[in-house]
Amino acid sequence: MKPNRSSLTNCCILTIFIFALTSTTLVTVTRAFTTSSILSSASSRTLSSSSSSTSSSLDAVTGVTRNPNFSKLAGGYLFPEIARRRNAYIEAHPDMASRIISLGIGDTTQPIPSHILSGLEQGATKLGTKDGYTGYGAEQGQTLLRQRIASVLYQDRIEPDEVFVSDGAKCDISRLQQVFGSQVITAVQDPSYPVYVDTAVMMGQTGTQDSTTKQYQNIVYMPCTADNQFFPDYASLPRADIVYFCSPNNPTGAAATKEQLTSLVQLCKERGSILVFDAAYAPFIRNPNVPKSIYEIDGAKEVAIEVNSFSKYAGFTGVRLGWTVVPHALKYSDGTPVRNDFNRVMTTAFNGASNIVQSGGLACLDPEGMKEIDTLINYYLENAKLLRETFASIQGYKVFGGTDAPYVFVQLPQGMKSWDAFTHILEKAQVVTIPGAGFGPGGEGYLRLSAFAPRDKIIEACARLKVAL
Amino acid sequence: MKPNRSSLTNCCILTIFIFALTSTTLVTVTRAFTTSSILSSASSRTLSSSSSSTSSSLDAVTGVTRNPNFSKLAGGYLFPEIARRRNAYIEAHPDMASRIISLGIGDTTQPIPSHILSGLEQGATKLGTKDGYTGYGAEQGQTLLRQRIASVLYQDRIEPDEVFVSDGAKCDISRLQQVFGSQVITAVQDPSYPVYVDTAVMMGQTGTQDSTTKQYQNIVYMPCTADNQFFPDYASLPRADIVYFCSPNNPTGAAATKEQLTSLVQLCKERGSILVFDAAYAPFIRNPNVPKSIYEIDGAKEVAIEVNSFSKYAGFTGVRLGWTVVPHALKYSDGTPVRNDFNRVMTTAFNGASNIVQSGGLACLDPEGMKEIDTLINYYLENAKLLRETFASIQGYKVFGGTDAPYVFVQLPQGMKSWDAFTHILEKAQVVTIPGAGFGPGGEGYLRLSAFAPRDKIIEACARLKVAL
Repeated sequence: MKPNRSSLTNCCILTIFIFALTSTTLVTVTRAFTTSSILSSASSRTLSSSSSSTSSSLDAVTGVTRNPNFSKLAGGYLFPEIARRRNAYIEAHPDMASRIISLGIGDTTQPIPSHILSGLEQGATKLGTKDGYTGYGAEQGQTLLRQRIASVLYQDRIEPDEVFVSDGAKCDISRLQQVFGSQVITAVQDPSYPVYVDTAVMMGQTGTQDSTTKQYQNIVYMPCTADNQFFPDYASLPRADIVYFCSPNNPTGAAATKEQLTSLVQLCKERGSILVFDAAYAPFIRNPNVPKSIYEIDGAKEVAIEVNSFSKYAGFTGVRLGWTVVPHALKYSDGTPVRNDFNRVMTTAFNGASNIVQSGGLACLDPEGMKEIDTLINYYLENAKLLRETFASIQGYKVFGGTDAPYVFVQLPQGMKSWDAFTHILEKAQVVTIPGAGFGPGGEGYLRLSAFAPRDKIIEACARLKVAL
Repeated sequence: MKPNRSSLTNCCILTIFIFALTSTTLVTVTRAFTTSSILSSASSRTLSSSSSSTSSSLDAVTGVTRNPNFSKLAGGYLFPEIARRRNAYIEAHPDMASRIISLGIGDTTQPIPSHILSGLEQGATKLGTKDGYTGYGAEQGQTLLRQRIASVLYQDRIEPDEVFVSDGAKCDISRLQQVFGSQVITAVQDPSYPVYVDTAVMMGQTGTQDSTTKQYQNIVYMPCTADNQFFPDYASLPRADIVYFCSPNNPTGAAATKEQLTSLVQLCKERGSILVFDAAYAPFIRNPNVPKSIYEIDGAKEVAIEVNSFSKYAGFTGVRLGWTVVPHALKYSDGTPVRNDFNRVMTTAFNGASNIVQSGGLACLDPEGMKEIDTLINYYLENAKLLRETFASIQGYKVFGGTDAPYVFVQLPQGMKSWDAFTHILEKAQVVTIPGAGFGPGGEGYLRLSAFAPRDKIIEACARLKVAL
């Protein structure tokens, strides 16, 4: 790090400096829409760049300033953190490695059923033939798949060209953030799937995280706890531009009723908010009064985007296929359809889901595929029932979710911290769970258990939990 | 759009207004790192949101302000625009539909060879078995594939954990822009693959586009024309934080020599720039003095990221598989490894490439797969040779590229505009090309032709071009 400038380097710096002051081709660095509080003027920014480049050639660092939004991110992304702690435990207790049962990350475990599998296999095989080979497809997805999603899953409530096929809901959430940009205010359920907040931070929508509350400045946190049946009271909170809402919910397992969603859509309409409805767990819904899509609610097309995924439908977590619906009727305040900008991101920053995988998606939507999905989901729902029964039988624990969702959300005994419960259960029962606090400050005092596991593992985990708690 | 406020709505507005002024839970909207020149203070921003929500409930628009970066984007993304013009021509001349030969978008046309195909098929088939099923993988890619990429394609010049496997280079470029953020200055070759500039605009790195020069404020354009052998003179241009450089080049077909890349790495090091080296066309290199990777250059690890793809290696354009190398040694000015932030984006905003597709990637890197790739690439290179010979034989046209690249870049006769040439060739020869101007103002006066086509189509296209021009 010590200065050690050669005369050659100094000469070079001087040249750059003079050039920066005199060149007629110097790019204009005035920012039209955003200004940096760190480097506030064009000239200081250019000179700052030049001077930092000076040191870079000596220190083996570049002269590029780190994106400040990334330094705001607290900790790692939740699921890798869970994996890290599990692995650390195994390293310290290698004899326990084979006993570990993961009810943590919601990862599907059952093989892909035969009809759907044949769709994937055929998708691959035909690429070896002259007639079946395809290269770049429409970035928005194959026309037939968009049509089938609209008809089979939405009963034609939406148009095929409002469906954008992708490599998954997580990726689409990030792309939506790119579309919304850095100037929106985001609201999230608390607790919630961490991707909404983390991508908002990355995009520069937030301030820093408060070390006490664990909340980021400029995010509206909507508490969802047992006290309000895990449904947020958005009306009592500040308005946000974008409201993320997940039902059936990850992590709480709560599934919003038709009346609840009607009130939420109405409220978003009144407040001019865009609702991003995450329906990735829709196939788990068994209650007829719980909508599987936000578009079952009147007027939702003018308010809501729906993000969805085949991951849980058909065990496609590793296969990667999702979709997002952006209705033509959804518009920014200047009248521009949001769909236009999402289409721009999908065509410019994405290149379509794999053609092989889309072939598997088509097979999912055949009657045989839909039947296979039902069987698969029922299997996981039975797992959820076993987990529910287990916690219902343990003194001091209260259990939520797990009837229209693959997640069971357990309220811990008064005063117990969720990371402590995570550690206790890992050490005593070798069962990996997820602490509620990992999903946001509002999840403190809760634990999420996933029903995505083979049946025998669930039965074994339940037995161990009854002993350990 | 006319005002028609009900008393109920007015009451609601008033409530929101009072709430905004009094609520103790009002989110702090002060921005720590970015300030908006449109809405400069916290309070005006909140009130603006409230007031825009007022009109939204009446006009069927939301109260959300459109991301201003998207309105800066000029025109659509190039390739969909080409498709649109082709389709418009077909609609006007339906009898010509079957005659169309596409040498436009660089889309592979040959079936996937058998060994590589078997990797894809096996990747699908094993998901139907209890032992072979996998769900979420590491977001950065399967360990074995990362190891094989490092050893087979980089001769262990890089570490496996510096390799991030993805769904393609285009998507990775967008993720890199997310990592770099809105405050960097980007340099691109002119002409260049449009994704570098378009994603920079989306991220808010630029001002508006100048309607005359077609250049965006705050981008450094590095001219690459026949006059400088398509290699930019970065030293004579303003410093940029991020320098995108593609070799073998899309669209010019120029392949930079070891000496050229050594000088570029050295220059980036001196100026503290990060070099993003796009090596998607590396398998076309036949000249031993043209490096296939930037890491063949001494010191590149402290300066360069490499973006790459299986798309052209193995006809994976529709299959979707790519990778990006971010060396541990590459650091921001504050010493933070760039790799840390890229890893955060890959784990938070992405969920890994399809497990089926990664299995195909592994097959590519087997000796049988590598041999199949060579055969496939030689086929396309022979096509390129035919295109070169054709234009060499037509008076007034000069031809570049196509020896270490799948693209032939044709200099048009003096004064001919590239979009005019595109239209002329489409109408007279029913051959789809890409106008150089579509790749940036520096491409004016050139035309790109892609060698990705069946041989008989290339031969037919060459015959027609000789007649039409």
